[in-house]
Amino acid sequence: MNQRQTLKINNKGHLEIAGADTVDLAAEFGTPLYVMDKSYIKNMCNVFVKTLAAEYGEGLISYASKAFCCKEIYRTIDSCGLGADVVSGGELYTALCSNFPVEKLTFHGNNKSYDELLYAIKNNVGYIVIDSEGEAEDIEEICAEINKKQNVLIRVNPGVEAHTHHYIQTSKVDSKFGFSISDGSAESAILLTASKPHLNLVGLHCHIGSQIFEKKSFCIAVDKMTDFYKHLLDKFGISFSVLNLGGGFGIYYAGDDAKISSDGYADYIKEICGELKRCVAEKGIQKPYLILEPGRSIVGEAGITLYTVGRVKEIRNIKNYLAVNGGMFDNPRFALYQAKYSVAAAGRMNDKSEKLYTIAGKCCESGDLIAEDCPLPEMRKGDLLAVFSTGAYNYSMASNYNRNLIPPVIMVENGKAKYAVKPQSYVDLIRNDV
Amino acid sequence: MNQRQTLKINNKGHLEIAGADTVDLAAEFGTPLYVMDKSYIKNMCNVFVKTLAAEYGEGLISYASKAFCCKEIYRTIDSCGLGADVVSGGELYTALCSNFPVEKLTFHGNNKSYDELLYAIKNNVGYIVIDSEGEAEDIEEICAEINKKQNVLIRVNPGVEAHTHHYIQTSKVDSKFGFSISDGSAESAILLTASKPHLNLVGLHCHIGSQIFEKKSFCIAVDKMTDFYKHLLDKFGISFSVLNLGGGFGIYYAGDDAKISSDGYADYIKEICGELKRCVAEKGIQKPYLILEPGRSIVGEAGITLYTVGRVKEIRNIKNYLAVNGGMFDNPRFALYQAKYSVAAAGRMNDKSEKLYTIAGKCCESGDLIAEDCPLPEMRKGDLLAVFSTGAYNYSMASNYNRNLIPPVIMVENGKAKYAVKPQSYVDLIRNDV
Repeated sequence: MNQRQTLKINNKGHLEIAGADTVDLAAEFGTPLYVMDKSYIKNMCNVFVKTLAAEYGEGLISYASKAFCCKEIYRTIDSCGLGADVVSGGELYTALCSNFPVEKLTFHGNNKSYDELLYAIKNNVGYIVIDSEGEAEDIEEICAEINKKQNVLIRVNPGVEAHTHHYIQTSKVDSKFGFSISDGSAESAILLTASKPHLNLVGLHCHIGSQIFEKKSFCIAVDKMTDFYKHLLDKFGISFSVLNLGGGFGIYYAGDDAKISSDGYADYIKEICGELKRCVAEKGIQKPYLILEPGRSIVGEAGITLYTVGRVKEIRNIKNYLAVNGGMFDNPRFALYQAKYSVAAAGRMNDKSEKLYTIAGKCCESGDLIAEDCPLPEMRKGDLLAVFSTGAYNYSMASNYNRNLIPPVIMVENGKAKYAVKPQSYVDLIRNDV
Repeated sequence: MNQRQTLKINNKGHLEIAGADTVDLAAEFGTPLYVMDKSYIKNMCNVFVKTLAAEYGEGLISYASKAFCCKEIYRTIDSCGLGADVVSGGELYTALCSNFPVEKLTFHGNNKSYDELLYAIKNNVGYIVIDSEGEAEDIEEICAEINKKQNVLIRVNPGVEAHTHHYIQTSKVDSKFGFSISDGSAESAILLTASKPHLNLVGLHCHIGSQIFEKKSFCIAVDKMTDFYKHLLDKFGISFSVLNLGGGFGIYYAGDDAKISSDGYADYIKEICGELKRCVAEKGIQKPYLILEPGRSIVGEAGITLYTVGRVKEIRNIKNYLAVNGGMFDNPRFALYQAKYSVAAAGRMNDKSEKLYTIAGKCCESGDLIAEDCPLPEMRKGDLLAVFSTGAYNYSMASNYNRNLIPPVIMVENGKAKYAVKPQSYVDLIRNDV
C-alpha cells in the first residue's frame, strides 16, 4: 500500500479511500467492487497538465484510454483539460458518447480496420497514428472520398526499449507496431505518407515500454527522436510540428516498486521537457507541440478492488489460500503476467500481519490467483480484502469467464461514491444468445 | 489442422466446416467469427454417451460448461442426453434459461457464494460438489431452512496430477481446490459432511488435470479413488453410490499433439470403465454410478475462428507479422499460457506454404499474439485466416479489452449456419455506464 492523503487508515482501523470508509462502501455497493479515487485521478491529471504547461509550453497530456475506459473517465479527464488516445472503434464510440472534444483524440492501433478509420475520420479525430503503409493508403482513400485532409503521425521504433527499472538501447525492429528507424522502414513510410495529398503528416510517435521508472529511458527516446527529426530536416527538408512520446510511467504495485508522489511524476515531465528543449535548441529543429500519453499513472493507483473472503483453506506447512469472490475475470494480470499486487484486510488495518496468504479467485482454474504469499492478519470468512493499484488494466481487461459477472465501478470523491459503471446482471450474459 | 469428414478442403480449395464453405461464412457473417461444427459436437456427445452405456452401464456424461457456455450448447448437449457441470450462478442461469434438466446439473467451484448455493439448491440441481468444510456448513444451513435434502459429492485430491503427455503420482496437497486424501483432510470433510442431516453424501469427485493424452493417468486415478472408497467402507462402513472422475481428455491444437479420432476418445472411456469394473470387483466395493466431465474434448476441435488479415508486416530476416482483426480479446490463450494453435489460409488451402508468419492481434499490447511462426502461403491484406481448435476456452474467456467487440458464434450443421450468439454492438460496451 502506497499511503496518501486519500488512501489511509481511518480512526476505526478501516481502509479509507477518497474520504470514504471501504467497509461502508462494501456494505452499500457489495463486493467484488472496483473503487476509483476520483480526487487522485484529477490530481494526477492536473500535475501532468500544469507541469507540461509550465516546463514546456505548447503540448497535450493525452490519457491512454485502454488503461481504464468508460464514459465517466472521459468526463473526468476532459474536466482537467486532457486529450485522450483511443485504440479501437469501441473506445472512440465511448469517448464520443461522453461528448469528449474530438480534436483532442488520437487514434492508435496496429490494425485499425477500414470501418474504424472511416468512423474516426468522419468524426474529426485530431490525429491518427499510422502504423503501416497500408494504413496510410486506406486513410488517403477515405479522405479523398470525403474530400478531407487528416492530421496524421507515424509510429516509429526509435531503438529504445524500457521496462521497469531497466532500459535497453537497441535496434529492436521485431515489433508488431510501427516502423523501425534503424532499418530504414520509418524513412520510407514518412516519404510515402508525405506524398499523399490528403494526409497532413505533422509528426512522429513512439512508445518505449510500460511500467518504466528510469527517467533516463525517456531522455534517450527524446534524444533519438530529435536526432531523427534533425536527420529528416537535413536530408529532405521535412519539418514536424508535433512529437508524441507515448506513455509508460511506472506505478507502485508491490514490493520493490518505487513509490512515486505527484511531485515525483512532475519530475518525469520536467526531465522530459528539459531534455526536449535542450535537444531542440542544440539540433536546430522546430520546437514541436509535445504530446505525452500517461494511462496507468493516472488511474492505476487511483483504483482498489474490494473482495469478500469466502473460504480460508490452510494447508499445514504448505500454503494458506484465501478464496475471494472475484478472480481472473476481474483481474487477469496475475494469470497473464504474474503481476504482483499488495493487499490488506480493509476492515482490520491495524491488526498485525501474522500469516502469509495466497489470494485465489473463484474460477475453476488453478492459475486463477490474484497474489501470492501476502502478509495479512489471521483471516476469516466474511473479511473484506482490498487489492491495491487495480485502477489500470483491470476493469478494461475484465471478462465473463466462468460466467461470473464483471464487478461495478464506483468513483469516490470527498467521501461521496457514485457508480461509474453499474453492476452487470445475469441477463447481460445471455443478451446476445439465440 | 486435424482433418475429418466435417473439416476439409472443398473443390474450390477453400476450408469447409460442417458442409459450409468458410469463405461463404465469412462473407455472410463477417469476421472475426467463431464457427462451431454442431455435427462434431453431437458426434462426440454420442460417442461418450454410448461408450459409457455399453462399457459400464449406469452413468452420466456431464459436459463441462466452462469450456463453452451459451444457451445453444445446453440445448445441443441435452438433445444428446448429457448432463452438465456449472461453476457459477451465471452458468447455472444460462442452463436454466435453456430449460436444461436440472437433475442432470452438477455445481462445482472452490468458492461458491451463499447466494449461488441458495440459487442452485432452490432450483434442485442434481449434485453440488463440496470444496470446503465451510461450504458443507452453508449448504446444511440453506437446506435446513427450506427443509430439503441435497445430494452432494466432495472434491478430493487423489494424488495424481496429469498434464499433456505426462502424469505425476504425487501427494500434491497444494491446490486451491478440494481436500487431499494424503493429509487426512478428505477423510475429515467426509465425516463432517456425512454428519449433516440435510446433506446426502453420495460420493466423491476428483479432477486430475487438463489436456491429458495418457490413458494410464485416468486408470491411476480410478485405482486411487477406489482404494479410498474401500478404505472408507472398511474403516467407517461408508459406501458411496456415485463416482465423478472429472474431465481432462486432450485435444489436437498443433505440432506434436496427438490427433484423436472419435474411436480414440471411445477408447479412453473403455479403458476407464474397464479399470473401474476391475477395481470394483477386486476391492469389493459398491459399483458406483460413474460421472465423467468432458468439456474441451466435446467442443474444442469443433470450433474454428475466422479472421481477416488487415496488415502484413514483413521485417526482413527477422519476422513476418500478420495482423488479424481479432486478438487476445477473443482468444487470450497465447497470452495466458503460450498455447499453440494451427492456422490456415481458409480461402487458399491448396496454396503451398512458403513463409512463416506470426499471427498478431489488434490490441495495443506486444504480447497480443495468436500463434508464432506458422507456415502459410504468401499472405495478403484481405485474406481469410482460420485458427483451429478454438471451440473451448475462447468464447468463454473473451473480453472487451481495448473495447473490441466479442465476435459472434455460429453453429453449423449440414452446411446450414445459424447464430448461437449474435454480434455485440458498441451499445453493449456502455450498457452499464453512467
